[in-house]
Amino acid sequence: MQGGIARRGLMLVLSSPSGAGKTTIARALLEAETGIESSISHTTRKKRKGEKEGKDYHFVDQDEFARMRDRGAFLEWAEVFDNYYGTPRAPVERALKEGRDVLFDVDWQGAASLRAEAPSDVVSVFILPPSAADLEQRLNVRAEDPPDVVHTRMRGASDEIRHWQEYDYVIVNHDLERSVAAVRAILVAERQRRARLTGLKDFVKGLLAGL
Amino acid sequence: MQGGIARRGLMLVLSSPSGAGKTTIARALLEAETGIESSISHTTRKKRKGEKEGKDYHFVDQDEFARMRDRGAFLEWAEVFDNYYGTPRAPVERALKEGRDVLFDVDWQGAASLRAEAPSDVVSVFILPPSAADLEQRLNVRAEDPPDVVHTRMRGASDEIRHWQEYDYVIVNHDLERSVAAVRAILVAERQRRARLTGLKDFVKGLLAGL
Repeated sequence: MQGGIARRGLMLVLSSPSGAGKTTIARALLEAETGIESSISHTTRKKRKGEKEGKDYHFVDQDEFARMRDRGAFLEWAEVFDNYYGTPRAPVERALKEGRDVLFDVDWQGAASLRAEAPSDVVSVFILPPSAADLEQRLNVRAEDPPDVVHTRMRGASDEIRHWQEYDYVIVNHDLERSVAAVRAILVAERQRRARLTGLKDFVKGLLAGL
Repeated sequence: MQGGIARRGLMLVLSSPSGAGKTTIARALLEAETGIESSISHTTRKKRKGEKEGKDYHFVDQDEFARMRDRGAFLEWAEVFDNYYGTPRAPVERALKEGRDVLFDVDWQGAASLRAEAPSDVVSVFILPPSAADLEQRLNVRAEDPPDVVHTRMRGASDEIRHWQEYDYVIVNHDLERSVAAVRAILVAERQRRARLTGLKDFVKGLLAGL
């Protein structure tokens, strides 16, 4: 976009209650835009059918996870249903330095940790469902979930939604296509932020010298 | 975009040195996007051929301009070559309250005044030329300008460019189409800012009540 002007990458953080469309939006964004990649977490949970090491997750055992956590190798980490999940710091810092953007699909606690670690790199977007009925329907639609899981998720959704005010941008997902367009616009816009365009100072110096 | 969620409009402020493409970009933006309108200034200068009262400017005499200025009716005003130009406050405030956005094509001093008057409403974008040679060429291309005017403009361009660091976003205008796309993305993105979505609080309250 900036024709050779060096810039620092950004961390695009998407959160939403389960069932509000965040994962679909994230996938559509990665398909439509270049220069942004998904952050790949480390996890101690077992590999599910179809998942690939290094693509979906880095699968590690509890000991390795604990060692990484203790030496500060994670930007954020969390325990979910007895499994650990962590975002490794090094590949994110490399990407940002090289002007590549990184996408994070995390809950409000993950978003808060990332914000605390890298306040000027994080751009956070909260996706809201268009209505309670719509969210409930989308959660029930997953036929494989037993009713108590659906109930837990509804409660989880409330807890997540209560943190909407911590985000830079909020999108109410009335229409998937429009929501994807809005997230893409946020990415394109945030890439033009003066503070991220690390090569601008030299560019302007050269421009003024030529006038 | 937000399916009925009330929002406060924003003030999109474009600045650039003369000849960097700002006016062309502004026109393309107004053609492509709805919900944004140009701010119409008051001026004491004479109406030029083809200009229309209330469309290009509000043409007023020096006395009326001074009275408006003295009662604080301008968000910003400036004197340029013995003529006065001012941005009337009331229509802008009305637009913002009604969720409409207003576009401003002003120099760095105008941008600074607008920022001081409405810091949270202003989104400012600086357009840079791709090179000094390109800018010089575009300024010389205007065959109707005498050489000393071109020289003054080049000096003016330097003065303007020196203020690039006061802007939220910077676009190097290598390619008109891409620059227009970038400004459109900034507008679409900034409309999704949590802080502008004044109706969200009630929307979320309703959502949580239904879960």
